Amino acid sequence: MLIVMKADATQNDVERVIGIIEKLGFRPHTMPGAARTAIGITGNAGAVDPAHFENLTGVAEAIRVTKPYKLISKDLRPEKSVIKVGNAVIGGNELAIIAGPCALENAKQVFSVAEAVSRSSAKFFRGGAFKPRTSPYAFQGMGEDGLKMLADVRDQFGLNIVTEAMDERGIDLVEKYGDCIQIGARNMQNFSLLKYVGQTRKPVLLKRGMSATLDEFLLAAEYIMAEGNYDVILCERGIRTFGTHARNTMDLSIVPAVHRLTHLPIIIDPSHGTGRNYMVNPMARAGVAVGADGLIIEVHSQPEEALCDGAQALTPTQYLELAEQVKVIHDVLMPVAV
Amino acid sequence: MLIVMKADATQNDVERVIGIIEKLGFRPHTMPGAARTAIGITGNAGAVDPAHFENLTGVAEAIRVTKPYKLISKDLRPEKSVIKVGNAVIGGNELAIIAGPCALENAKQVFSVAEAVSRSSAKFFRGGAFKPRTSPYAFQGMGEDGLKMLADVRDQFGLNIVTEAMDERGIDLVEKYGDCIQIGARNMQNFSLLKYVGQTRKPVLLKRGMSATLDEFLLAAEYIMAEGNYDVILCERGIRTFGTHARNTMDLSIVPAVHRLTHLPIIIDPSHGTGRNYMVNPMARAGVAVGADGLIIEVHSQPEEALCDGAQALTPTQYLELAEQVKVIHDVLMPVAV
Amino acid sequence: MLIVMKADATQNDVERVIGIIEKLGFRPHTMPGAARTAIGITGNAGAVDPAHFENLTGVAEAIRVTKPYKLISKDLRPEKSVIKVGNAVIGGNELAIIAGPCALENAKQVFSVAEAVSRSSAKFFRGGAFKPRTSPYAFQGMGEDGLKMLADVRDQFGLNIVTEAMDERGIDLVEKYGDCIQIGARNMQNFSLLKYVGQTRKPVLLKRGMSATLDEFLLAAEYIMAEGNYDVILCERGIRTFGTHARNTMDLSIVPAVHRLTHLPIIIDPSHGTGRNYMVNPMARAGVAVGADGLIIEVHSQPEEALCDGAQALTPTQYLELAEQVKVIHDVLMPVAV
Amino acid sequence: MLIVMKADATQNDVERVIGIIEKLGFRPHTMPGAARTAIGITGNAGAVDPAHFENLTGVAEAIRVTKPYKLISKDLRPEKSVIKVGNAVIGGNELAIIAGPCALENAKQVFSVAEAVSRSSAKFFRGGAFKPRTSPYAFQGMGEDGLKMLADVRDQFGLNIVTEAMDERGIDLVEKYGDCIQIGARNMQNFSLLKYVGQTRKPVLLKRGMSATLDEFLLAAEYIMAEGNYDVILCERGIRTFGTHARNTMDLSIVPAVHRLTHLPIIIDPSHGTGRNYMVNPMARAGVAVGADGLIIEVHSQPEEALCDGAQALTPTQYLELAEQVKVIHDVLMPVAV
Repeated sequence: MLIVMKADATQNDVERVIGIIEKLGFRPHTMPGAARTAIGITGNAGAVDPAHFENLTGVAEAIRVTKPYKLISKDLRPEKSVIKVGNAVIGGNELAIIAGPCALENAKQVFSVAEAVSRSSAKFFRGGAFKPRTSPYAFQGMGEDGLKMLADVRDQFGLNIVTEAMDERGIDLVEKYGDCIQIGARNMQNFSLLKYVGQTRKPVLLKRGMSATLDEFLLAAEYIMAEGNYDVILCERGIRTFGTHARNTMDLSIVPAVHRLTHLPIIIDPSHGTGRNYMVNPMARAGVAVGADGLIIEVHSQPEEALCDGAQALTPTQYLELAEQVKVIHDVLMPVAV
Repeated sequence: MLIVMKADATQNDVERVIGIIEKLGFRPHTMPGAARTAIGITGNAGAVDPAHFENLTGVAEAIRVTKPYKLISKDLRPEKSVIKVGNAVIGGNELAIIAGPCALENAKQVFSVAEAVSRSSAKFFRGGAFKPRTSPYAFQGMGEDGLKMLADVRDQFGLNIVTEAMDERGIDLVEKYGDCIQIGARNMQNFSLLKYVGQTRKPVLLKRGMSATLDEFLLAAEYIMAEGNYDVILCERGIRTFGTHARNTMDLSIVPAVHRLTHLPIIIDPSHGTGRNYMVNPMARAGVAVGADGLIIEVHSQPEEALCDGAQALTPTQYLELAEQVKVIHDVLMPVAV
Repeated sequence: MLIVMKADATQNDVERVIGIIEKLGFRPHTMPGAARTAIGITGNAGAVDPAHFENLTGVAEAIRVTKPYKLISKDLRPEKSVIKVGNAVIGGNELAIIAGPCALENAKQVFSVAEAVSRSSAKFFRGGAFKPRTSPYAFQGMGEDGLKMLADVRDQFGLNIVTEAMDERGIDLVEKYGDCIQIGARNMQNFSLLKYVGQTRKPVLLKRGMSATLDEFLLAAEYIMAEGNYDVILCERGIRTFGTHARNTMDLSIVPAVHRLTHLPIIIDPSHGTGRNYMVNPMARAGVAVGADGLIIEVHSQPEEALCDGAQALTPTQYLELAEQVKVIHDVLMPVAV
Repeated sequence: MLIVMKADATQNDVERVIGIIEKLGFRPHTMPGAARTAIGITGNAGAVDPAHFENLTGVAEAIRVTKPYKLISKDLRPEKSVIKVGNAVIGGNELAIIAGPCALENAKQVFSVAEAVSRSSAKFFRGGAFKPRTSPYAFQGMGEDGLKMLADVRDQFGLNIVTEAMDERGIDLVEKYGDCIQIGARNMQNFSLLKYVGQTRKPVLLKRGMSATLDEFLLAAEYIMAEGNYDVILCERGIRTFGTHARNTMDLSIVPAVHRLTHLPIIIDPSHGTGRNYMVNPMARAGVAVGADGLIIEVHSQPEEALCDGAQALTPTQYLELAEQVKVIHDVLMPVAV
C-alpha cells in the first residue's frame, strides 16, 4: 500500500497517517518529494484496507501495490533520488566519479593514487580494506588499518570514502571510517547482510550480482530500504556470460531500465565490468552516454605490481584522460538526453 | 606444500611434522588415508622450503602444490571422503537421500512429510527454518521454532537433520539443533560466512552458486576446510542460463569433474535444479546414473499450498516412487560404474 | 487448426477432409495414430473457420491451435512417434545407439571403428563427411568420398548411416548415400536448409542450437515437418554457458520437457555435450536414466590422432563398456519409468 | 604465412610473390596498406617454408602466423579498413547510420520511412525482404518484390541498400538489387553460406551469432575473406544471457576488442540488441561513445502495426532525435578518442 499525500498536506497530516500505520502494526516509509509526500507501508502480510486512509485530511490517494517492490519504485517517488555521500551527491546533475585502487596495499600507493584522483573532477575515493577473494590463500585486505588510511585520505584530499564491507563487523567499521558502504556482487543476495546494512544510516553502494536479474537486483535494494535506509546507489559491474574477451559482460541496458522503474541512481564499474585495462575508458564513455549517474574506476600507480586485479587498473595518466573524455560526453548530453 | 607420510610412519613421526609446520607459523591439516597420512600446509604467503621436511623420519615426499586448492584435492587424500552426518554417512557405498519440505511451515506439515520420508530409504530430513527469499516481503521462515521441530523429527523418526543457515547466529543455532549445516547457493561466496562455518565441527552441505565455475565452487569448499572443518559435502543445484523450460539448468557433468579432482562427495538437488514437479524424478535418476553420492528432494504433503516453491515439491507418493526408481539404478550401477 | 477424426472414420472420410483443406488453399498434414487419425492444417494466414469441417462425416473435433507449433505437438498425435531409420527404429522400446568417428578420415579408421560398433547393440553408424569447422583453415571433411565409404560400412556391417549435411548439395548427397540426414547445431535456425530438408523423404536428426530455447528448438522441427517430412529426431548436444569444466553444458531436463510437449523422439550427444573423454560414459548413463530415446557417441580407434575432436572420442574398448552400462540402466528402467 | 613487402616494393615485386604463392598451390590475399602491402597466404595444410620468399626483391619479412585467423588481423593490415558500400563508406571518420524498417511490408510503409531516413545524416537504408522467423507460420518477407522496392528507394532518395540474404538464391538477388549483403546472426556459422558470399563482390554485413565468442565471430569473417571478399563489416547485435529486461544483452566491450585485433569496422544494432523501444536511443549513444563505426536502427512509421519486431522500432520522430544525439557525441569524441 502506498499513501500519496496532497500537495498542500501539512506535516500534521503526514504524522497522523504514520501514526495509523504504526497502530496497525505495520511500518511506514516516508518519502518527501518535490511536489508531494508519499508514504510506503511494509510489514503487512496480506492486503491493507485502503479505507483506513482514504478519508483522512491531506490524503490524495491510497494505492494498492502489486509489484514485488514498493520503496524503490517511481510510484512512491516520481523524482530521482539524489543521494548525499559525505559532502557530495550521487544522482544529481553532475557525473559522480569514484576512483582509487582495487585493494589498499600501503600508504605510498594509497596517497599517490589519491593525489591523482584529487586532481580530477572525482569527489569520491575507493579502495578495498576487506577483499572478497575467490581463494582463501589470496591477499584478504588490510582491514581496519586500511580504513584508517582512507580516513586520512579524506582529511588530506577532501575526497569522500566509498569502501566495501563483507560482514557485520566490517559494516560497523566502514560506518565509522567511511562515507558510503559498498556491498559487493557476491553478497548481493546475502539477505542477512542487506538487512544489517539497512539499519545503518550511511549510504549504500549495492553492486549487481554476477547472475542477478533486474528484479533480483531491485529487490536486494528493497531489502535495504525496507529496514529504513533509503540511500541506496545501484552499480552495474558486468554479468557472467559465455564470453571470454572480457572478464564479464557489461549490461549497459540495465541503466535505462533502472531509470524507468526506480528513483534510485545507478553507476557503472567498467574496471570489474571488463577486467581489461584497454576497455575501461571506452566502456566508461559508453556508460556515461547511456545515462549512468556515475562511474567507479580502479586506478593504481603501478598496475603491474597490484596485489589484486592489476590487469584492469588504469595508471593515473590513463585515468585523467578518461575523466576528461567522459566529462565532454556528459556535458554535451546534459541538454539533450534524459 | 603437501607432506605425504610413508605407509609405516608412526603417530610420532606425524606429530613431529605438525610441530615443525606450526613452528614455522603455518597451519597443518592432517588427512589420514587408508594407506598413508598426508598433511597439507596453509597460511604460507609464498613457497615453503621442502628442505624443512624431506629428511625427517616417516616422510615420503614433500610436494609443492601449484593448483589454487590444496585441501580438497586428491593429491592430499586419494580416497573418497566418507562424511559422517549424525548417525549415517554421505559419500559411502550407499546412496544418501535427504528429503523434506522446502520451508518448515507448521508441525502438521512437518510430521506428515517426515513420516513419509521415514518409510523410504532416506536417512536425512531437510526443511528450511531460515529462508533466503528474493523479496523482503516473502515468508522468511519459522526460525528457532522450526529448528526445535526438526530436533523433534530426529527424536521421533531417527532421521538426521540437514538445514540451512544464512548468518553467524543461524549457524550457531543449526549447530545446536541440526546434524548438517547447509550453506545456500546465494552464500557460496559469502567468504565471511564460509570462514565462520569452517570453525564449527558439524558437517557442511555447500550448494553451488548460480553462476559459479567449478574452480570457484571448489575454492569455496577450500575456504571452509582451511579453517579446519574437513566435512564438506558439495551440492549441484542448477546454474543460471538463458533456458526457460526449467527454473535452472542442472549441470550434471560437474559430478564426474568433482570426483576426478577432489575426495569430497557431491549430491544433486533436482528440486531446485529444475523447479518443475514432473522433472524431479527423471533428473534424480540421471543424477544417480551420473555417479552422484546422494540426492536432496523436496516433499510436501500439499504442494499446491506450500508457502515456498510448491511447483517443484513432490507429493509423498511421488517421492516414494522416485526413491524406488533411483535405488534400482544405484543397485545395478554399483558393480559396473565408478 | 487440427481436425481430429473419429476412431471409426474411414479412409474416404479422411480424404474428403484433405480435399477440403486443399481446396481452401491450405496444406493438410495427416498423422495416423493408434486409435484415430488427426490432420493438421498449415499455410493459413489467420484463423480457419471450424464450420468447414465440424459437420463432416467421420470428424470428431476441429480444434483451434493457439500454440506456436502444431505438427510436433501431442494434440496432433498423442502417441510417441517411432521413426524408421534404414532397417531399424528410433523412439521405440529399444535404446537407439548411434556410434562412430566424428570426422571420416580414411578407410582404415572407418572400418576399424565400424567393426567395434557392430559388436555392440548399436544399429546406427555415424561419421562426418562434411564438417562444420570454426576455422576456414581446419579440415573440412572428405565429402562424397566419405559418403561412399559410409555406404560400404552399411553393406559390410548392416549398420544404418547417420551423417551431417550443411547445404542443399550436401543434403542431396546424404539422401543418396545415407539413412538419416543430420542437421548440426549451427544450422538449427538455417531456415532455408530446414525447408529444403523438409522436402526430402529421409529422416532428419536435428541437433539443438548452442543457445536455442526449447521453443526455438521445437519450432525448428516444425519448419521441417511443415514441408511434409514428419520423421524428425531431436538431439540435445549441450548448450553454451559460462562453465568451463566441460565444453558445453548438457541440459538433460530438456528430455522430459520434449516428451511432455511432443510426440518426437529425443536422443542425447554426450560426446559433443561434454567434450571430455572421461565424462562421456557417466553422461550417457544419465541420458538414458532421464529417459532419452538414444545416444550418439564418438568412437575413434586412435583418439589422440583424430583430425577433429579427439579429446572427446572414446576408444572402442571404452565404447563397449559404455554400451554395456547404458543397457543395464535401460533394462531396469523399462518397467518402472516413463 | 604473411609476406610483408617493403615500403618501396614495386608492383612487379608484389606480382612475383603472388606468382610463387600460386605456383606452390596456395592462395594469395593482397592487402595494400597506406605505407606498404602485405600478402596473406591461405590454403596451406601445414607450415609454409619462409625460405621461398625471404630473399626476393621487395620482401621485408615473411611472418609465420600462429593465430587462428590471418586475413582479418592487424598483422596483415595495420590501418583500419574503410569499406565502400554503394556511394558511401563504413569505417571512415564519419559515423555510418543504416536505418529503415525491420521487414519490408508495402510501398507506403517503405517510402514513408525512407523519406524520414533521408532527412537524417544516414546514408544507408535497411529493410528485410527475406526474414528469418522462429516460426514457420510467421510472415517470411516479401522476397524479390521487396528487393525491387529497395532499389526504388535508392533511386529516389540516394540511400545505399543493406539487406539480408538467407541462402544462395537470396545472395544472388541481393547482389543484384542491393549494395551490401547482410548475413544474420542465425547464419553466422552457416559455413557454406559464408563461403558463397565470399565469392560475391558486394560488401558483407556480418552479424554476430547469439552465442558466438569473439574468436568464432572473427573466424566467420575470415571464412568470407578466405574466399577473396575482403569487404566485411562486423555487427554486434546482442548476445543471449539469463537477462530478461532486454531481449538480448548488448556486449559493447566487443567493439574495442575488435578494433584491437582486426582492421575491420564494427557497427552495433541497438534495435535487435535490446528489443525495447525506450532503450534504443541510450544504447545507440553508448555504442557511438564506445567507438563503434556505425549504427543500424529500425524505424517504422507505425511501430504498433509492424508485422515484425514492432516493440523495438522507433517512430521517425524518435529516430531523428537519436540521429541528432549520436552526432553530438561522435563530434566531441573524434578529437579525443581512438
